[in-house]
Formats: sequence, C-alpha cells, structure tokens
Amino acid sequence: MEEIIIDFYPDQKAARIEKGGNLLKAAHAAGAHINASCGGAGTCGQCKVFIEKGEYESKRSDKLTEEEWQQGKRLACQTVALTDLVVRIPPESRLDRTVLKRKEKDAERDKSFGLTALKITIEEAFETEPVVVKRHVELMPPSIENNMGDLTRLIMALKKQYDYDNLDVDFKSLKTLSTILRKANWNVTVLILEKTGITPKIIGIEEGDTTDKFYGIAVDVGTTTLYVQLLDMKNKAVLAEASDYNPQISYGEDVITRILYAIKSSGLERLQEAVIKTLNNLINEVVKEAGISKDFISLIITAGNTTMTQLLLGINPKYIREHPYVPSVNFYPFIRACNLGFELPTHVYLYTMPVIASYVGGDIVSGVMACSIHQNQELVLFIDVGTNGEIVLGNSDWMVTASCSAGPAFEGGGVKYGMRATRGAIENVEIDVKTFEPTIYTIGNLKPKGICGSGMIILLAELFTKGLITPDGKFVKTLNTNRIREGENGYEYVLAWKDETQIGVDLVITEVDIDNIIRTKGAIYAGCSVLLKSVGLDFSNIEKFVIAGGFGSFINVEKAITIGLLPDIPQERFMYVGNSSLAGARLAVFSKEKLIEAERCANMMTNIELSNYPSFMEEYVAALFLPHTDLNKFPYVMEQIKGNN
Amino acid sequence: MEEIIIDFYPDQKAARIEKGGNLLKAAHAAGAHINASCGGAGTCGQCKVFIEKGEYESKRSDKLTEEEWQQGKRLACQTVALTDLVVRIPPESRLDRTVLKRKEKDAERDKSFGLTALKITIEEAFETEPVVVKRHVELMPPSIENNMGDLTRLIMALKKQYDYDNLDVDFKSLKTLSTILRKANWNVTVLILEKTGITPKIIGIEEGDTTDKFYGIAVDVGTTTLYVQLLDMKNKAVLAEASDYNPQISYGEDVITRILYAIKSSGLERLQEAVIKTLNNLINEVVKEAGISKDFISLIITAGNTTMTQLLLGINPKYIREHPYVPSVNFYPFIRACNLGFELPTHVYLYTMPVIASYVGGDIVSGVMACSIHQNQELVLFIDVGTNGEIVLGNSDWMVTASCSAGPAFEGGGVKYGMRATRGAIENVEIDVKTFEPTIYTIGNLKPKGICGSGMIILLAELFTKGLITPDGKFVKTLNTNRIREGENGYEYVLAWKDETQIGVDLVITEVDIDNIIRTKGAIYAGCSVLLKSVGLDFSNIEKFVIAGGFGSFINVEKAITIGLLPDIPQERFMYVGNSSLAGARLAVFSKEKLIEAERCANMMTNIELSNYPSFMEEYVAALFLPHTDLNKFPYVMEQIKGNN
Repeated sequence: MEEIIIDFYPDQKAARIEKGGNLLKAAHAAGAHINASCGGAGTCGQCKVFIEKGEYESKRSDKLTEEEWQQGKRLACQTVALTDLVVRIPPESRLDRTVLKRKEKDAERDKSFGLTALKITIEEAFETEPVVVKRHVELMPPSIENNMGDLTRLIMALKKQYDYDNLDVDFKSLKTLSTILRKANWNVTVLILEKTGITPKIIGIEEGDTTDKFYGIAVDVGTTTLYVQLLDMKNKAVLAEASDYNPQISYGEDVITRILYAIKSSGLERLQEAVIKTLNNLINEVVKEAGISKDFISLIITAGNTTMTQLLLGINPKYIREHPYVPSVNFYPFIRACNLGFELPTHVYLYTMPVIASYVGGDIVSGVMACSIHQNQELVLFIDVGTNGEIVLGNSDWMVTASCSAGPAFEGGGVKYGMRATRGAIENVEIDVKTFEPTIYTIGNLKPKGICGSGMIILLAELFTKGLITPDGKFVKTLNTNRIREGENGYEYVLAWKDETQIGVDLVITEVDIDNIIRTKGAIYAGCSVLLKSVGLDFSNIEKFVIAGGFGSFINVEKAITIGLLPDIPQERFMYVGNSSLAGARLAVFSKEKLIEAERCANMMTNIELSNYPSFMEEYVAALFLPHTDLNKFPYVMEQIKGNN
Repeated sequence: MEEIIIDFYPDQKAARIEKGGNLLKAAHAAGAHINASCGGAGTCGQCKVFIEKGEYESKRSDKLTEEEWQQGKRLACQTVALTDLVVRIPPESRLDRTVLKRKEKDAERDKSFGLTALKITIEEAFETEPVVVKRHVELMPPSIENNMGDLTRLIMALKKQYDYDNLDVDFKSLKTLSTILRKANWNVTVLILEKTGITPKIIGIEEGDTTDKFYGIAVDVGTTTLYVQLLDMKNKAVLAEASDYNPQISYGEDVITRILYAIKSSGLERLQEAVIKTLNNLINEVVKEAGISKDFISLIITAGNTTMTQLLLGINPKYIREHPYVPSVNFYPFIRACNLGFELPTHVYLYTMPVIASYVGGDIVSGVMACSIHQNQELVLFIDVGTNGEIVLGNSDWMVTASCSAGPAFEGGGVKYGMRATRGAIENVEIDVKTFEPTIYTIGNLKPKGICGSGMIILLAELFTKGLITPDGKFVKTLNTNRIREGENGYEYVLAWKDETQIGVDLVITEVDIDNIIRTKGAIYAGCSVLLKSVGLDFSNIEKFVIAGGFGSFINVEKAITIGLLPDIPQERFMYVGNSSLAGARLAVFSKEKLIEAERCANMMTNIELSNYPSFMEEYVAALFLPHTDLNKFPYVMEQIKGNN
C-alpha cells in the first residue's frame, strides 16, 4: 500500500494514511479537530475544509452551496486523498479551545443578565474525611522474636492505631510492600479506600509521612467539554483546572451519534481511548501547573451523563437507546484508574457518579448533590439544558427527574449559522425598533461567524418584542427593511452582511431556524410543566429555579422568559450554578460524606418518562408559540409587548 | 548479531540464540530440561551434556572426571555456542516426568513398608459451600415502568432470593453484563466470592442455569514438583490430575538458589513466568482429560512453601533469607488469576494458602488443615521432609512449628550418586550379612543410575545393621569384600559395578555421602526433639506421628528408626498422608469452612527459631550417630543390632 501524508493547518498536525484514505479519518488520526456532528455520514455539512495542495476525489454534497464549491470548499468526510495533501480547516469548521476558559469566570457579565449565582459550599471545611484516607504509621522492625510477615505487621499497627476492625488489601500494593517498608525504615503512609458497605482496603503504601501530599482529581465528562480540576484533599482547595473539548465530538456531536458509533466494530474502544487520552493530557496540564508529583494523586472522581459514563468505562451503551432505555449500571464500583488507560499510579481508584436512567446521568446526580437540594425543604426545580434537557424537581423529602429531547438548537445544531459559544459567536443582539437594524455583540469582539445558544434566546426575544416575527415565529414581511428577505430556505433575517463576517456570506437566521429554536424551548418548558403536574404542582410552587451547566450561566433570564423558555415567575427565584456536575465531583473528592450523599440523591430520584404522559404532547404543542399559546401564563411578557407596541 | 540454532535431544526442542550464547540458558529458552541445582554457577556439576555437532567453547570443571571429558561430556553452564549445535542431554542430567505418577498410587508397596495411610476426609460431603458460589436467578425484564439499570436489577434479585445484605461487584463483570442478560433472556447464574470479613462480590455472570458446571483447581506448588487437580465443586469430586516438574528447577534446585536467581535482573519475572507456564499446561491437560470447558472454572487455590508462594505471585523473595527472615505476606488476598498470567477466564480468582514464616509455608498450613490436627485433642507431630524439614507439633489447643535446614541429601544433593525418586533410582537394598554383596531394587526395574532418598535410608540401615559401617558412619575396612575400597573421595562401597549401571561408572556410596545423610537425619531428629522440649514434652508423648510429602509415603519406618531419622516409638503411631499440601488445597476449593480452617491453623501456629535454642546444637551433635549417641533412646534398634551380632 502506498502511504501519503496529509498536513492540516492551522493546527500544524499531520497524518500518514494509505492512498485513497478518507480525509475526516485522517484528521482524527492527526488529532486535528474538525466539527462533524453526524460522525462522518455526510449529513451535517460541518466538516468543510479547503484543500490547498494535492489531488483528491470528493463527492458533491447539497450541504455545500455553489459558491462554496467554487471557493474550493469540500466536505472532509466525502473526500478521499490521492496524493499528499495540504488541508486548511476554516474557522467555522474548527473547535476553538481558547474560549473554554471564559465560562464561569466573567462575573461582571453574569450580573448583567440578572442571574444570581447559587453559592456551592465547596470551600467549606468538611468534618468528614475523603473516601480514600492516608494513615501514617511507624512500625516496630521485625526481629527473630517478632518475625511476623510484613503485611501482618502493617495491618496490626493500623488496627491498633486507627481502630480498624478488618482490613482488606489490594494485591498490587503487596508486590512492593517489603521493599518500601525497609527503604522507609518502617515509617510509612498507607492509602486506604474506605467506601461504606465495603471492607476498608489498603490500596497503596508510601515512604515516610506523606499525609501533606494528598491530591485528587475531579472530572466533568461532558458530551462537548471535559473539565478537570486538581484538588488538594488535605486543605480542601482547588490547585489547578483545565478543560478541552471532548475529542469524541469528532465521531459524533451528540450522545445518539456516539452510541451509534460505539456499536460499530472497535467503535467503543476508539471512543474510550479518545476521551481518556485527552483526560490524561488535561491531568498532565494541571499537575504541571500546580507543580506536584503525580505519585501523590490518590483518587479520581468523574461525573457525566449515562452515555459519557459508559463510554468512559468502556461499557457498551447500546441498550441506552433501546426500549425500555435502561443503563447497564446505576451505581458503579471503584475501578483501578490505570486499567482504564489513565496514566496514574496503580493505587489510584476511580469513582463514577451514579446514574439514574438512560438520559438522566451522573452529571445531574452530582449537580443535585452540589446544590444541596436533598438537604433543604424548599422546592427546587433544577434544569441542565443541552441537547437533552434534564430536569429535577424536589426537596429533602422527594425528587423526580425527567429528560426531554430538546434538540441541538442551543448548541448550534439545526440552526443554519448556529455554533457553540466560542470566539466569533454572536452572544447578544439589540434590534432597533424603528429601523430594524441589529447591533450585534460577539464573543471576543471578532467579526461574527455564527450565533450561539444564549445569543439565539436574545435574538428571538428581540425579533418577537420588536415586532419582526409573529407569535408563531413567522417573519412579518411588510416591514420597511431589506434585512427580511426570501432566501434559499425561505424567509430570513440578515444579522450581518457578508463583508462584516468571518465567513464571507450573509449571516442570517431563517424561519426554519426559528422553528427549531421554538421547538427546543417548547420541549423544555413542556417538560418542566408536565413534571410539575405529575406531582400535582405548577410553576408558582417553585421556590428556587436552578439553571445548571455552562450554558445556563449565560442565559438572559428576562429574554428567556420572553420567548417562553423559562416560566414567568419572579426573576429573583432564578439562579445559576455553573458546572454543578464538576462541583459535585469535587465535593465528593473532598468528603466521603458528600460521595455518600450523591448516592443517597440517586436513590431518592424517581425518573419519569415524559412520553408516558399523554398531556406532554398537548403541553408541548401549546408551548410552540412565543411565549406560549396561553398568554395568561406570561403576564410579564404581555406587559412588555404592550409597552413596545 | 549473528543468530544460531541449538537443537536438544532427546527432547527435540530447539532455541534460536545469539552466537556466543550460553548453552544452559539456551536449554531454558528451548524448554529442554537439564538438571542444574546451582542455577548455572558451575558448582553442582549436574548439567552434563554431550555436544554431538557444532563448535563451542567450554571451561574445564573439576565436576567432570577425566573420563567424562574424554567421552565429550561438558557442563552446559560452562559452554558457549559458536555455531549451530546438536546437544544430547544424557539420562542423569534429565528430569524424568514419567515417574511422577508413581507417587501415592502404589498402595501395595506402601504396605510393605509398614506405614499406615492417614485417611484425609476428602470425599466427605461438606455442609458448607465453597468460597465462590453460583447463584441462579431469573429476572423480570425491564419495562418503561420498571426501568432500573441492569446491575441494580440483578443485585435486587440476588438480595431478595439469597438474603444478601450488601453486594460488591467486580468491574470486569460489568462490561458484558447487559449483553449477557439479554442474550440469556434474563435467566443467569451469578458467581459470587464470599470470603468472610470481605463484602460478598459479584465476580462473573453466566448465561442460563450453570450451577451444574462448577469446577475448581487445586495446586500444590512444590519446589520440585507441581501437582494440579481439577475438581467438581458441585459433587466434591476429583475429575482429573496432572503433575510435572517445577520448571524453576532449571534455575536452581532449592529455594535459596531460586531466591538468589530472583534477585537478579528480570530473575523474578522469569521464575514466575516459568512456573505459571507449566501450570497453564497442566490445567489444559486436566481440562482436556475431563472434557470440560475452561469457562466453567470458578476458583483456583494454591499451596506452596513461602518462597514458592512469593515466586508464584511475583513478590520479591529477597527478605525471606535475610535476617530476621520474614515473609512479605502471611495472609494473601484473593487475586485475579489472569493478572498473574493464568490462562483462565477473567472471573477466576486465585487464593493462596497462608504462610507462617520464611521457612514454614502454605504447604504446611494446608497439610495441617487437611490432617485435621486443629480438630483433635491427640498430640500430633507432623513432619514434611525435603531440603528443609518442616515440623508442626500440636493439637486442637495449640501448635508450634519449626523448620530445620536438613540439607538436600534425601533429594539427591550432596550425595555423589544421589538423585530424585525417578526411573533408575535405587529405592531398596538388601546386603547379605555374610558376603556383604548387595541386592538392589530400582524404580522401573531399570539398570541403576543413582540412589534416591528412601533408598538411602534403607542403604544406611543395611550398612549399619550388617556391620559395614560403624555408628559414626565410617567403613569397617577389615571386612572380606572388594566392595569396600578407597576411592577418589575416600572410602566407598560399590553398590553396582560399571557394567550393571546406566551411567557407565561404578555406582558407589562414599563416606562423605554417609556423613551428609547422617547430618540430614540428625538435623530432623534434633529439630523434632527441640521443638518437643520447647513445650516441655518428649517423643513418648506423641500420639500420632504424621509424615507428609511424596517422599514421606516411601519412607521405610523401621529402617528410618534404625538410622535414627525417626524416633524409636511404636511403629503404629506413624502415618503418612502423601501430598497433604494438595489435599488441603483441594479441601479449601470444596469448602469455605476448610479455607477458613486453614487460616485458623495459620493463626494458631507459633513459629520457633531452632537456632535460638542453645540446646539445638547439642541435640544435633548427639544425633550425628547411628542411631544416636544415647542408645537408650533407641531400645528397639539396640535389640536388632544385638540380634545381628
């Protein structure tokens, strides 16, 4: 077989592939990110690239306009390389990591949206120890009179000094036991895993007193983004953090496409390897930043949705999407991290937050625990909006959960120029009520290349309240503006003219886009509404409305109420918690009690299948209006509209 | 580097090595056995080979006679190959597996030696279950209303049906859980490890009801020999057995040379690999013989001395022979067998019999449990004679143990024509009281090539009682026989003339040999005596004297008393148990209670360092006489000698 080389710019990464090989796969191999939410099926049209040099064959796709084809754009997934190639990945096809750090940091901006941050009590000192503890012991050296074996000697000292009834021991730690004891002159620190209900287990032995060097890792395994925090378990502090895109994105943007990929031959292994490789990089980053030794990492706790959890652990996610939608495992045992591919010392165990159902995962359990919903009497509605909207309703006595397929609109899917909240994304818009001219604000103050979820909410509210669209999301065609026009896909509104953009074409929002956004917001609203009804309540009963997730922190509550995404209740009841999944994992690293609380939360939650409720479809259809078919539900919005007109 | 090929005959095995490579190492690589008790140091002189073809360089060694050198014999360990070689391993340098099966089977012969077999209650039905159990459950399939995860569903069913309080789960079994449950239509059998003191743990899941297919493996890891039995855990039956030499012999014959080899770079790994490779072969043999599937093996239990145990598990044995002689571990956790290199399903766990001290190991604990010493009031002295003699004294209330360095005489070491009990070994001798001519009996009725341990005892007794040697082991030079003569190494007695042997030289026993045998028997006798004294007892208190080990079954009690190896107590008190180490492992596979009893035995045993007792040296010196300095201790022997003279 003839080998050829594909160079990717601006990544400056290269892959060596067989002649005739696929360009998207070459990008995977090179580690060059190209958006491809369909996983290479040719249906999403996101993997557009310019081939600057070399010979290739490429299928024409209706995802490329005539203009793009002429410019030399091709879909990477539809292209095979015939010679060495030089490929440039344009901005709109690239994942941009630099913007990740923006999230959760821009406090000033948060306030402008009127959301209150729910303070998660991370920095509190916990009374309890972590689930892995360090026990320092000094042993009597053996003598002819006292010549019991090394392990017996160690266990007896631990039992005496720390009151253990029984101690199990990990075989791996025995191989080096005798050498370490002698090297350390019988002065050692023992790592013990103390999960309740399981016999405490010796998992590692370190020379001398290392109780000061006691580190843990918290991980949020998001479908889109991976967050890693390095924690000082002794002083309960965050030492460093890092994040990156989940590299599985290259194999499919949402959980369903990833499950489909995982079912393919070697698919599961490939997805698992990809995510663990990136996590290893992130762990190396935080360890380097904090200047600690990996040897003293003692625990890793991850939280992720059910599919991300099963992919991380290498458990086939096939049945998640098959009726009746059950996860393989709700509560996971502790797993030796290096067995999964983590480049961590063999003594490090990984704990995974328990999951509730196929579409209500460990990220939600982690978040609910972090927000202490299970510890307070007040009624909380907790939502995490992504491709799926997960909803939890309850208090310290009970909890119900549901998930609704919101669609990918807020993450950029199904919207012509939709994109994630990265640089160049329109995140705010004001439309002049007279001229209908927009003023747009982008992340990074760059020329726009698309519009992100939080921007869509504001845009839709603006279009609606300024009278450019009707409550059913159709453009008012009689207005005196050239911004509303008929385009390829029906009527559209021009947000930015070609020359003002990074993408070289007019940046528009179409009626089809608006329809998709309305369906998304309708599904979430209907989900919350039906979940409340299922327990005999309505929105007025909610005392605290918690919006979780990175996206949540950027939602403009007023505008979200305006379009009927959020219910029309007093705005001070809304709070955001940022990445509560990561926060919960962090709490569980610090405190065994918090870990147990997460399991208690999981046990409390009853999952409700919304599709089983006949009223869900009615509620959903009623919510496919701006803000809602029943305007009485939105008195504040009614007032606003009256004010504008 | 130039590669050359070394062919070994009659094994018909070949190794590809670098030019200039060592011949003994080449034999290791080829898997061709050559005796080499010094591990290749050039001091034992056992690795004699004929090089039939090719060029080589070989150092002359005083272990080779002038005649042997002329015949073309070379020490493999002192030879480097310069070209392809054809090497023939002569009978005396070869380990002979065919004879292994002889042991424990020749009931008729056993009786002739007057030993009674101690019946080990192996075939008894045990009330208790094994430590790994099989639980058959039929689950309700999931539905939208009842959609808990697969593992939760399984655990709830097990808790309900089998009354578990808590269940841990092995991560490995989770990866295939969902697939198996569906394939099996929710009808499965679950393997649960139920070690006391440790939370019961799900370790495997099998389709359908497999409770009838429930197999285990018992292994005796001897320094010389490996024994494997395949067991039917449901019906408590032995299905097949197999044995082979411990391939570590090629790296050193006794535990000390192996420890020295293990300390070398990669030595430990090589020794571990060697033994596990042979165990895998033996397991394949028994599985094939019984016609079962390996998939249904559920447990493996091994027993071995402390060094064999640490080598099997890959734990550096260095400290075993360093003051104050402590093992790394007394009580081992359950270890996943495949992690050690066993070619067994991932669900199979390995349990190792606990060890007492550096030189009192799991084989002894296993044997003591098998003999039920801990369950009876009668006082038992239990000995296992090998290179080390291990001694246990006690009953259901207390036990003390000791080991004495007996020396390798009974295993063939330190005796010019000493050898293991394999084909061609002299195992019985009668000497005519008038002519001093011997009648010899060999294993397999072949021409003799050496003399084995049980043969030495009889020979020594014959030489002594027939007046050929004095009580201090010196030849009586005034007798009218050409069989007593002065040889290279001092005075000697010719057992067989050159032409009557397989080895082409006169087969003799020398005064040096006799000295070594006397030292060995003296050490064992003194060890027993001091151990008794340490608890205020003497030989007359012993109600049962149990001789363990393959060698034990072949000891002629009368002759052993005659030379003062065994004490002069009524012969009906002596019993042999054969391979009690294997028997104990087998019992522990069948019954959790027996496994716990073994641990209880280990906890009961107090190890006594004989070297700490000043009286040991006195006792030892007093025992360096035939039968003993104090003839009053041997009234029966005194009578016999009087009868002969």
